[in-house]
Amino acid sequence: MFKLHGIYAPIATPFTGGKIAYDRLEKNLEFWLKSDLSGIVVMGSNGEFVLLTPQEKEELMRFVCAQAKGRKPVIAGTGTESTAETIRLNEKAAEAGVDAVLVVTPNYYKGEMTDPVLMRFYTEVANASKLPVILYNMPRNAGINISAKLAVELAKHPNVIGIKDSGGNIVQIADIIRNAPEGFSVCAGSASFLYASLVLGAKGGTLALANIFPNECARVQMLFEAGKLKEALDLQMTLMDSNNAVTTRWGIPGLKAALEIIGLYGGDPRPPLVPLGEAEREALRKILMQTGFISKPTT
Amino acid sequence: MFKLHGIYAPIATPFTGGKIAYDRLEKNLEFWLKSDLSGIVVMGSNGEFVLLTPQEKEELMRFVCAQAKGRKPVIAGTGTESTAETIRLNEKAAEAGVDAVLVVTPNYYKGEMTDPVLMRFYTEVANASKLPVILYNMPRNAGINISAKLAVELAKHPNVIGIKDSGGNIVQIADIIRNAPEGFSVCAGSASFLYASLVLGAKGGTLALANIFPNECARVQMLFEAGKLKEALDLQMTLMDSNNAVTTRWGIPGLKAALEIIGLYGGDPRPPLVPLGEAEREALRKILMQTGFISKPTT
Amino acid sequence: MFKLHGIYAPIATPFTGGKIAYDRLEKNLEFWLKSDLSGIVVMGSNGEFVLLTPQEKEELMRFVCAQAKGRKPVIAGTGTESTAETIRLNEKAAEAGVDAVLVVTPNYYKGEMTDPVLMRFYTEVANASKLPVILYNMPRNAGINISAKLAVELAKHPNVIGIKDSGGNIVQIADIIRNAPEGFSVCAGSASFLYASLVLGAKGGTLALANIFPNECARVQMLFEAGKLKEALDLQMTLMDSNNAVTTRWGIPGLKAALEIIGLYGGDPRPPLVPLGEAEREALRKILMQTGFISKPTT
Amino acid sequence: MFKLHGIYAPIATPFTGGKIAYDRLEKNLEFWLKSDLSGIVVMGSNGEFVLLTPQEKEELMRFVCAQAKGRKPVIAGTGTESTAETIRLNEKAAEAGVDAVLVVTPNYYKGEMTDPVLMRFYTEVANASKLPVILYNMPRNAGINISAKLAVELAKHPNVIGIKDSGGNIVQIADIIRNAPEGFSVCAGSASFLYASLVLGAKGGTLALANIFPNECARVQMLFEAGKLKEALDLQMTLMDSNNAVTTRWGIPGLKAALEIIGLYGGDPRPPLVPLGEAEREALRKILMQTGFISKPTT
Repeated sequence: MFKLHGIYAPIATPFTGGKIAYDRLEKNLEFWLKSDLSGIVVMGSNGEFVLLTPQEKEELMRFVCAQAKGRKPVIAGTGTESTAETIRLNEKAAEAGVDAVLVVTPNYYKGEMTDPVLMRFYTEVANASKLPVILYNMPRNAGINISAKLAVELAKHPNVIGIKDSGGNIVQIADIIRNAPEGFSVCAGSASFLYASLVLGAKGGTLALANIFPNECARVQMLFEAGKLKEALDLQMTLMDSNNAVTTRWGIPGLKAALEIIGLYGGDPRPPLVPLGEAEREALRKILMQTGFISKPTT
Repeated sequence: MFKLHGIYAPIATPFTGGKIAYDRLEKNLEFWLKSDLSGIVVMGSNGEFVLLTPQEKEELMRFVCAQAKGRKPVIAGTGTESTAETIRLNEKAAEAGVDAVLVVTPNYYKGEMTDPVLMRFYTEVANASKLPVILYNMPRNAGINISAKLAVELAKHPNVIGIKDSGGNIVQIADIIRNAPEGFSVCAGSASFLYASLVLGAKGGTLALANIFPNECARVQMLFEAGKLKEALDLQMTLMDSNNAVTTRWGIPGLKAALEIIGLYGGDPRPPLVPLGEAEREALRKILMQTGFISKPTT
Repeated sequence: MFKLHGIYAPIATPFTGGKIAYDRLEKNLEFWLKSDLSGIVVMGSNGEFVLLTPQEKEELMRFVCAQAKGRKPVIAGTGTESTAETIRLNEKAAEAGVDAVLVVTPNYYKGEMTDPVLMRFYTEVANASKLPVILYNMPRNAGINISAKLAVELAKHPNVIGIKDSGGNIVQIADIIRNAPEGFSVCAGSASFLYASLVLGAKGGTLALANIFPNECARVQMLFEAGKLKEALDLQMTLMDSNNAVTTRWGIPGLKAALEIIGLYGGDPRPPLVPLGEAEREALRKILMQTGFISKPTT
Repeated sequence: MFKLHGIYAPIATPFTGGKIAYDRLEKNLEFWLKSDLSGIVVMGSNGEFVLLTPQEKEELMRFVCAQAKGRKPVIAGTGTESTAETIRLNEKAAEAGVDAVLVVTPNYYKGEMTDPVLMRFYTEVANASKLPVILYNMPRNAGINISAKLAVELAKHPNVIGIKDSGGNIVQIADIIRNAPEGFSVCAGSASFLYASLVLGAKGGTLALANIFPNECARVQMLFEAGKLKEALDLQMTLMDSNNAVTTRWGIPGLKAALEIIGLYGGDPRPPLVPLGEAEREALRKILMQTGFISKPTT
């Protein structure tokens, strides 16, 4: 059975002319599949999943699985507002060869998304899914938090194998780790709190920054697991400004510009998202260069 | 050209067996179309629009327009996370015979939805739309607010004719009214602040409660426009507990239970939304009965 | 017994050389006492009450009461974090000749300030006070809200005569008005929602802007009570930018600069508050001049 | 010069009959002074500092310093809303023999407490203070956050030696640590994120729970510094429920009840704070007993 461990990149979805650019994606995928990443997350928040049509989602899962086949596991973000649509996408994910599904909280009806309602939602989804389910806590986007208590309750479901916690509340992360059943994997949802999470017992991370610095992100965990704490911490600290640049500060437009800076295909995000301006792009380049992880600037 | 004025019901979408129950909808529509409402909003937040597939949305618009034809105007909620999908739905709305579109803020990428980004989003949507566009400010669900400044700026676009403001920030409502161009309609998004909005110059309201008490909601505005302020205020006050029950307190499950209490079809909301329990249903019935607007209880 | 009705100015406390400037205050008071205001609030949020020592508070109450004697009623802000200190100040207020006390929610221990705790706090304060007590809801500063339910419960206490609600949640204001006992006065806490509050049944307002435009603020209520709704609304709208400037936008520094612009003494606020810079002062002057209520600019 | 390092207890202030119970405090202090704690914080949030009069604060500092003389360093919480009053208390602290002052953000005028204003406040306080100044970030109570950027800027002031960060935002803590000058001490403000903070480079913690389990809290840091990470983490996890009980869950009333459970004097908090009820006291006792750190229950 699939084990959630290590660093995953929630990969960007490339577009040209308003369509998914599969040729560009293929080349980007080569970079990630050859890296030290443990695996790939397709259709995460950084993959602009809410901007994809149902058809595009099915197609995209098939494409990425075909590329990754036998090389690295693929997790697919299949959460939607609707229980039925999520279950349907999970079936398509299984058909496509996905290894596990990442299911964000429904979030438009925030007032109604109480713990019992979320409990029921995830239970129904996990019951119906052939693939192992990973909870996805993304308060900054969803405006909803999966509490430690709820996560621990859901962790008892045999088909719920872990959580990607992007909230960064380290107390909540500790509470889930210490109270969830053995074998339930907690993953940091951002590189900014990766090391702190690992130290508390997290099993890895799904990190926007792993699109840009996959080996360096993976190296934080390798160093930690090898007991090289000083080096792990130094590396963690080195990654923080870059991580901030491609998440909180400039979001997906920043991530796509960063892909271009390292020589991959970025392209424009889908509207309403707006590409980064020239000045911000320069500022971003400087931040990335300061890590020392990019040998020479590309243009 | 279509003028946004008066009370609209953002109608509930009825389901049976997981599908839209068009036969039930037809009967419900009769009730609303025969009422004193100025018009109908299909696929608003109360219509569970985020739980409908793109195909269902197209179908639903066509059905409601066919029923309402020549009787009352129809507004359709066509906002999605994606600019392209919103524009596509607006085309379908025009084909279906919709009178105006109501476009909620994209909201998953909250951090990126700055005023300039929302400005660009609404401008592109309004440029492309054959139908007049109504802004939809719904901070409680979207976690994003359309500021007065942004609303006033957008109000200058010839194809942006009004705003449904469900935030209930009365200062913001006043700021939009006093600064927007003549002819731009501000509508209260909830019955709880309908009268206060009218008094400040709002042109009407799009109110969940208008599903249940269409004539009474319309009467608040009629009384106000007739200068019968004392009666308008008394009626406003009478409606508040019922309004709270079908919005903030019990949400869509409450609204659907209330439909059943007045003898229409309610049915279950789509999961993850959970129908009201028996005890809450009784409490709701009492609240509605206290208005005196339901002649005798139905079961 | 004292009746809370009409427009009150929560007056600024003038300082020179780090001390309360009583001579300047005397002149300012003449302006307010000769105006159409219903009364004066000393030691409100705009009076920098949290920056005054206990001794200064006692002195200030005595001074203002002596000046206002027989001319206008005086309300004193006596709320502190501590029940005992609040009760002590209420005794001093009674000795000084104050007409009623305005008691803000204790707010440092936000997590502990539940409804039952606030219920007990206000009940103990009201029981012990010789003067009528006015609740002071100031969520923007306190980070705590007095819910409609709590306000209505407290309104049953014979010594709790009203609430100054600065939160501006119009639904909450309506809920308090319709559910509180006859005779309980709800007052708008800011000029920005004065008219909307009056229309719903509020009895007046305690308004920062009444420091600057006392007659114009009072006139909103006079026009409303005389049934001149159109004029009242127009005046309300005219006041909004000025109100915003001396509250949300520039706060107490803005209020003190505005006092200087109309020819009264402003002076610097107490540190850590920082006086307005020159550019902001010019912007403020323009905003105030646009009302047409200042005959000619002073410098 | 004083170095901020290790675990401090922000001690509870005991009251009897509405006055500070110095005899009880003396006995409690013996417990803390004989423990493995690095030092004592008097008049922190847990010391109910906002409920003390200026006179009580002066007296209390003198008393605690007299007791602790030559045994452990004493930090005093001297922050108030007013710059002048804070500076005055810092003088009294120096006279009393305090080792460093802990200065919370002024917080009533939240809207005005921008970074430049806080920068000026802390700079003026640090310039005037004979004692080293520790920043106190307490967003849960203050409703204001000292950003990493501001903390790093202030850390350059020679008289600002550290920060107690009670916000628990681990990314912010990491950002301060990596960007502040060498020698600036970051301290965890709650036991729930002590270990995670230490691992990132924090120098200790000022922890409510250190009132109850001083040796165990100190042991987390000792184990960490000795490289016994597994044991440190286990101990951290064991302490979390107890910490939650005396902070977020039951606050100061919980802390005082816990003092009684371990055989010290607790007593009632000052109103408006309300003592813990019997049922909650039992629940608290169970939580504390589960740690195994209390040999036998006391009553």
